[in-house]
Amino acid sequence: MRLAILFGGMSFEHEISIVSAIALKKVLNMPLTFIFLDADGSFYLIPANSMKSNHFSSKSYKKDEKIYLTKGGFEKRGLFKSKPVKDFDTVLNLVHGGQGEDGTVSALLDFYSIPYIGPRKEASVLSFNKWLTKMYAKEIGVECLDYQIVSINDKREINFDYPVIIKPLRLGSSIGVSIVKSAKELDFALDVAFEFDDEVLVEPFVEGISEYNVAGCKVGDEWILSRIEAPQKKEFLDFEQKYLDFSRTESVNSAKIGSELENSLKNSFKTVYGSMFEGALIRCDFFVKDGKIVLNEINPIPGSMANYLFDDFTSVLTKLSSHLPKNRVIKPDYAYINQVQSAKGPKV
Amino acid sequence: MRLAILFGGMSFEHEISIVSAIALKKVLNMPLTFIFLDADGSFYLIPANSMKSNHFSSKSYKKDEKIYLTKGGFEKRGLFKSKPVKDFDTVLNLVHGGQGEDGTVSALLDFYSIPYIGPRKEASVLSFNKWLTKMYAKEIGVECLDYQIVSINDKREINFDYPVIIKPLRLGSSIGVSIVKSAKELDFALDVAFEFDDEVLVEPFVEGISEYNVAGCKVGDEWILSRIEAPQKKEFLDFEQKYLDFSRTESVNSAKIGSELENSLKNSFKTVYGSMFEGALIRCDFFVKDGKIVLNEINPIPGSMANYLFDDFTSVLTKLSSHLPKNRVIKPDYAYINQVQSAKGPKV
Repeated sequence: MRLAILFGGMSFEHEISIVSAIALKKVLNMPLTFIFLDADGSFYLIPANSMKSNHFSSKSYKKDEKIYLTKGGFEKRGLFKSKPVKDFDTVLNLVHGGQGEDGTVSALLDFYSIPYIGPRKEASVLSFNKWLTKMYAKEIGVECLDYQIVSINDKREINFDYPVIIKPLRLGSSIGVSIVKSAKELDFALDVAFEFDDEVLVEPFVEGISEYNVAGCKVGDEWILSRIEAPQKKEFLDFEQKYLDFSRTESVNSAKIGSELENSLKNSFKTVYGSMFEGALIRCDFFVKDGKIVLNEINPIPGSMANYLFDDFTSVLTKLSSHLPKNRVIKPDYAYINQVQSAKGPKV
Repeated sequence: MRLAILFGGMSFEHEISIVSAIALKKVLNMPLTFIFLDADGSFYLIPANSMKSNHFSSKSYKKDEKIYLTKGGFEKRGLFKSKPVKDFDTVLNLVHGGQGEDGTVSALLDFYSIPYIGPRKEASVLSFNKWLTKMYAKEIGVECLDYQIVSINDKREINFDYPVIIKPLRLGSSIGVSIVKSAKELDFALDVAFEFDDEVLVEPFVEGISEYNVAGCKVGDEWILSRIEAPQKKEFLDFEQKYLDFSRTESVNSAKIGSELENSLKNSFKTVYGSMFEGALIRCDFFVKDGKIVLNEINPIPGSMANYLFDDFTSVLTKLSSHLPKNRVIKPDYAYINQVQSAKGPKV
């Protein structure tokens, strides 16, 4: 399997997507093509030896070859004709945040019939918008924390006792997230969050809660689940810490937990994944609170694809790429249209 | 305002989208451009006088000018250079069903920064998948009928007493829908529905229920709501009937209902629309059951845009086009990326 890593995108997570792609280059043992989506919406074919942060921050990538979406893949455009980019079979959607996780990239790849690893449109929308994630969790019977949505024009009233945690509704990587310890800190935290979204999620902040991360995917009828990690962190992972997190390539040890909790976490993961996330490798971050498993977040495109949680990450992606969801091909037969007299237009 | 009507699409509702576009041509009193998306994913500029059903069923449209998505709009491609299609300011997404209503078209138009009337990605996904519509309705406190999801590989067991109504999960226009009166009709109805989707929705079928349709949109802080229609129908609108429905251009009378019910229906509409459907003109189909309002369906791109429910439809679209949601433009500043040592690559 030859993989094209698609990264970048117009989002607040543009830079961490670059870091993630560089991390995967180190980890994956397969032919790789790198496709950069810049913040202006152009695609570039990046030579493997240019995959360094400076190549992007200096805008040197603009000298690389520009490529374009076309039916079945990407193409290079010459003066007289276009040539397909033939170096890959499957795209890995590694565009974190907006565009990548909000359904835009999946819609583009679906529309142009390009096979890809990553969340489909519905899965993207449900995991990118934290309110919709709550809805989904409740529907499938997975516990989540209480919450409140505050819009930019709403009265700034909080329904919970402090401390609370405030998050922009549609953003990952802890960008714009604050823990608010008292009412006098509220305005500032909301101002910060509203920089990134017109709606924010407010949750009670529970101290001393255990967090466990599980990644995985479904390949046909087989589940491939990762080790369970108990992330070491401060109060919560702020952006800079998470940023470093995205560059992870060294494998971690499993959390020291009993097999009962391990099984419960894995079952919760499977319930969340369901058929909704088919085609994607996702990471679910759970809390354990009073012995109950609570879903914190679904990362439909986790940082560096959570490669560090798997023993042989190349084979995980290879297997997944061979079991991607198929879109139905529908050909109109125009059997009905001629029955509609009004659509025929005047007789001549 | 100059409008481009985008219609067609690869979906089971391809043909009714054509009928819808032809109906709007008759109704709208403004400069119109017609962009046809064929089932192969190509776009064509259709001359207004070719807007007849036969032009599409005979494939004559293939002789029309092919156009391509590009930043800010569509372009014609010549041998040496490309020319933008400049005849419109706003696109009206009139692609019913798959691609148009599932978030694909909105993602494409967002990605290429083309202003459009139509549901955004989240709104598309929530209204196209009937299961997600139920989730959303419950979350916002709007009643809906009980339901059950049956997947193609599930045991064929129904949780309700007969009669039940069976619908493909992701499809409009009553395609693949059956009323099942007894267990012996179940297999056939499921077979039909599974032709169109791997998951189906099962609901109890309630006879003699009243149905009311309301369409509208929010323009800034102002609501534009249509007349309320009590559609005359058989047991339910089957595809052929609905198909005819999509060609409607003659305005209908308001349902004869008291002002209390009228207000309740309008309030339910506003609750459903919320901020989720901003930018779209939608139609909500409600049932009234035991005096309670129950949401049946959200049509984020209703047939012929439900023009027949408004007095001056041209002005509705003109107003809406002046208040479309804006996407945030995000420019990466690369402030963080150089802090990540591992992303810099080896020093030379």
